[in-house]
Amino acid sequence: MQLSKKIKFIDENETDLLKRLIDFLKIQSISTDKSFSEDCKNAANWLVRELKFVGFEAKAHKTAGHPIVLASAGAGHPHLLFYGHYDVQPTDPREEWKHDPFEPTIESGPNGNQVIARGASDDKGQLMTFINACRAIIQIDGELPCRISLIIEGEEETGSPSFEMFLESNKHLLQANYALVCDTGMWNSQTPAISTMLRGMLGEELTIKAANKDLHSGLYGGPAVNPIRELTRVISSLHDANGKVTIKDFYKGVTEVPNYIKKQWSQLNFSSNNFFSEIGLNVSAGEYPYSVLEQIWSRPTCEINGIWGGYIGNGFKTVIPSEANAKISFRLVGEQDPEEIRGQFRNHIRNNIHRDCKVKFFSKDGSKAISIPLDSPLIRAAQKALLDEWGTKPVFAGCGGSIPVVGSFKEILGLETLLVGFSLEDDRIHSPNEKYNLKSYQKGAKSWIRIISEIADYS
Amino acid sequence: MQLSKKIKFIDENETDLLKRLIDFLKIQSISTDKSFSEDCKNAANWLVRELKFVGFEAKAHKTAGHPIVLASAGAGHPHLLFYGHYDVQPTDPREEWKHDPFEPTIESGPNGNQVIARGASDDKGQLMTFINACRAIIQIDGELPCRISLIIEGEEETGSPSFEMFLESNKHLLQANYALVCDTGMWNSQTPAISTMLRGMLGEELTIKAANKDLHSGLYGGPAVNPIRELTRVISSLHDANGKVTIKDFYKGVTEVPNYIKKQWSQLNFSSNNFFSEIGLNVSAGEYPYSVLEQIWSRPTCEINGIWGGYIGNGFKTVIPSEANAKISFRLVGEQDPEEIRGQFRNHIRNNIHRDCKVKFFSKDGSKAISIPLDSPLIRAAQKALLDEWGTKPVFAGCGGSIPVVGSFKEILGLETLLVGFSLEDDRIHSPNEKYNLKSYQKGAKSWIRIISEIADYS
Repeated sequence: MQLSKKIKFIDENETDLLKRLIDFLKIQSISTDKSFSEDCKNAANWLVRELKFVGFEAKAHKTAGHPIVLASAGAGHPHLLFYGHYDVQPTDPREEWKHDPFEPTIESGPNGNQVIARGASDDKGQLMTFINACRAIIQIDGELPCRISLIIEGEEETGSPSFEMFLESNKHLLQANYALVCDTGMWNSQTPAISTMLRGMLGEELTIKAANKDLHSGLYGGPAVNPIRELTRVISSLHDANGKVTIKDFYKGVTEVPNYIKKQWSQLNFSSNNFFSEIGLNVSAGEYPYSVLEQIWSRPTCEINGIWGGYIGNGFKTVIPSEANAKISFRLVGEQDPEEIRGQFRNHIRNNIHRDCKVKFFSKDGSKAISIPLDSPLIRAAQKALLDEWGTKPVFAGCGGSIPVVGSFKEILGLETLLVGFSLEDDRIHSPNEKYNLKSYQKGAKSWIRIISEIADYS
Repeated sequence: MQLSKKIKFIDENETDLLKRLIDFLKIQSISTDKSFSEDCKNAANWLVRELKFVGFEAKAHKTAGHPIVLASAGAGHPHLLFYGHYDVQPTDPREEWKHDPFEPTIESGPNGNQVIARGASDDKGQLMTFINACRAIIQIDGELPCRISLIIEGEEETGSPSFEMFLESNKHLLQANYALVCDTGMWNSQTPAISTMLRGMLGEELTIKAANKDLHSGLYGGPAVNPIRELTRVISSLHDANGKVTIKDFYKGVTEVPNYIKKQWSQLNFSSNNFFSEIGLNVSAGEYPYSVLEQIWSRPTCEINGIWGGYIGNGFKTVIPSEANAKISFRLVGEQDPEEIRGQFRNHIRNNIHRDCKVKFFSKDGSKAISIPLDSPLIRAAQKALLDEWGTKPVFAGCGGSIPVVGSFKEILGLETLLVGFSLEDDRIHSPNEKYNLKSYQKGAKSWIRIISEIADYS
C-alpha cells in the first residue's frame, strides 16, 4: 500500500502538473464555432500524446464532428470508464475578460491561487485531475490496480451529437463495470460532493416569421403584425405569476424529493443570501413555494437563453422586422419526457401566435433526468475516499445542470456512473474569467487516487 | 396672367429638364456613409450652380455634417420657404439593382416612362419639380411673384442632426410666411394628395440588468431572475388583447378623426387586401376596431424595432445573461406629448419588472404629431391649384411616418407647412430600383407653378 507516496507525488510535481494544464488550456477548442475545428483536433491530439506519456494506449477517433479520444491501460477487475470533454464554451463577451481567455493566468483568489482561462474548470482542469491520478499511480506502483479506460469527447458544449453513435459502434471496447465523470462541483471549498440527481435538458430554437420583408414602421406600424411583439408575448406566456411553466402536461413525471433527502439538504447550511449576493441579486425568481436548493436540484425550469430580432446596431431604425428569434432550454427532472415536452412546447407556441405568423423550430437534443441509487458499492467507495481526502463527509447533491452522457452510459452500456468533481460555485464556468482553484486541481487528483484505490479494493 | 405659358414651358423644355435631373442623380450623395462625403459636397455645389442659373442667389453653408444650401429670389409678400434634401439612402443590396443606381436609366412602366436611380423619387426628383417651377416662372415673367427661399439639406436620411441648429442660427434669413415641402406622395397616379396629418415619433432604448455576470442555466436556472424573461414580460404588457397600448395616459390628447375626413377616407377605395398581400400578410394586427387607414394615419402605435440578449450565435449556450435590451418606438398623433409618454413608459417598465432588475433608458428624440388646419389659406390655395392641374380634388391624407422638419419649422420659425408631393406607392424609395415617373416630374413642376401663383394671388 503506497497510497501516501502517490498522494505525495501530486504535491512534489505540482509545478509540472500545472504546466501541463496550462499547455492544454492554451488550445482554443471551442466546439460550437466551426472556425475553431482545427483547434479541437489539436486538443484531441494533445490528449493522445499526454495519455501515451502517462502510460496509456490512446487514439483520437474521427466522428462526424470533433474527434473522440479513447485510451486504456491496466488489467483486472473492475474496468473503470472515465469520461471528460476537451471542448470549451465560446468566450463572448470577450471584452469582459481581464486577460486573453486562452492565455492562462495564475492569480490569488479567496481560496488560494487559481488559474484563469476558458475551460479551466469546465472541463479541462477537472479532466486533468483524473489523468494526474493515473500518472501518480503508474509512477509509484508501475501499473494501475485495475483496467482503466478514458473516453474524452469534443462536443459536450454542443450537446454531444456524435457521442451516442460512437458508444454504439465501439461497445466492444467499452465493456466496463462503472463509469466515472469529473464535471461537477464541490458543496463548498471544504466539502466534497457526489452528485446523485441530475436534471435533464431540452433545447429549442424558434424563428417567428411575419411580413415578407422588413417594413417601415411609419408606413406599416399598426396593421402589420410585428414578430418581435409576438415573440415576447408567447415567451412571456410560458410562465405564470408563481414561476410555474404553463406548457400543457409539463409537470407530468415530476416527483417530490424524498423527505430524508430534503432533510439532508436542509442541514447543509445552504445560504441563499450568499447564493444571491455573489451574483448581485437578492431574491428568488423561481418556482413558488420551493426552496432555492430544491429549485436548482429538483425542479424543472424553462429559460430563455437568447433572443434577437430587428435592428440591434447603434442608433435607431424604425423597422418592423420580418422575423424574430429565440433560443429556449428546459431543465428536466424525474420522469419528464423531453420529446413529449418538445411537442407540447411547439403546440403552445403555434396555438398562441398571430395567424399571419409562421414558426420554424430547430431541435436541440433532449435528455432525461438521472437519479443514482445511494446504496451502491460505487457510491460507498467514493464516500469513504472523499472523507479520507477532505476530512469531511461528502454531500449527496443534486445537480442543476444536465450531464447527458450519464444517460447514454446507462442506456447504451448499462453502466452506473459516479459523479465527483471539484469545481466551486464561483468558478464562472461558461462566463468571462472562468477559473479553477489550484487546490481543486491538486486535491482533485488525490481524491481520484483514493477513489480508484477504494473501488479496486472493494470489488 | 401668363399661367398657360409657364405650364407650356415645362412641356417644351421636357428634354432639358430631364437632362438636369439625370445630372443631379449621378452624384452619389449617400449621407450615412462617410466615404461619400465628397459626393454630398458635390451635390450641394451642383444645386448652388443650378439655382444661380435659374436666377437665385445661392450658397452652400458649412455645418458639422454635410452642407445646407440656402437660396433666395424675388420680393414681396408672402415669403415662401421651400424645403428639400439632396442626400439619398445607401444602395444595398446592390445586387438587386437592375442597373447601376447612379447611372439613371429611362424605362417604361405601368404609368408611362420613369427614371430609375437612387434618389429619383426621394428626394431629388421631387425637389427638382419645385426648382423647375421657379425656372418656368422666371423665364416667362422675368421674376417671381413673391419672395421664395429654398433650404436644401444633405442629412435627411440620417435624422437631420445639423438642421435645427442651422435654423436657429439663420433665423434672420428665414423669416418666411409659409413652408413648402415636396417629400410626400400622391394618393394614386391620378389623384394628388395634401398631407395634413403627420404622426409624431418617440424612441426609447432600454437595457434590463439582472445578475452581475452571465450565469449557467443549470447552476442558477430557476432562482436567478432571467432578464430576457423580464424583458419579454414587460414588453408584452405594453399592449392589451385589442392592440391598445396599456401605458398610463397614453391616449391623452388622441382625438378621433372628424367624420367628414373619415367619410373622405372611406371613399378612397383603399384596398386593405392589396396593402397586406404586397407584404405577405392577410389580416390587421392593429388597434381594434379602427380601419387600416385610420390605424396608419390617425392612431398612435408602439412598435418594438429591435430586441437582443443572451447567446445569439450559432449553436446553443445554456446561459442566463446578465442583461437584455430592446429598441422601442412610438408613433404619436393629435396632442400626445412625447415627453409625458416617455415618463409614463419608463414608469410602466420600472413598476413591472422583478425587483432584482435594474433598467437603464436611453432617450431618442421625440416629436409631436402635426395636424395642419384644413381651412387655412395655404391649404385652400393648394387645393385649388392641384384640382386645376390634375382635374381631381386632392385627398387630405394622413402620413404614418414623421417628417421632423415640419415640427422644426413650426417650433423654431413659427411656420405652417404645406406638404405636397408626387411620388407613387410603387416608387421603391429606400429600396433597390427606386424610380420616379416622368409624369410626376412634369406635372409636379406644373402643380408648383399653380400653387405659387395661387398663394401669391391669395395673400
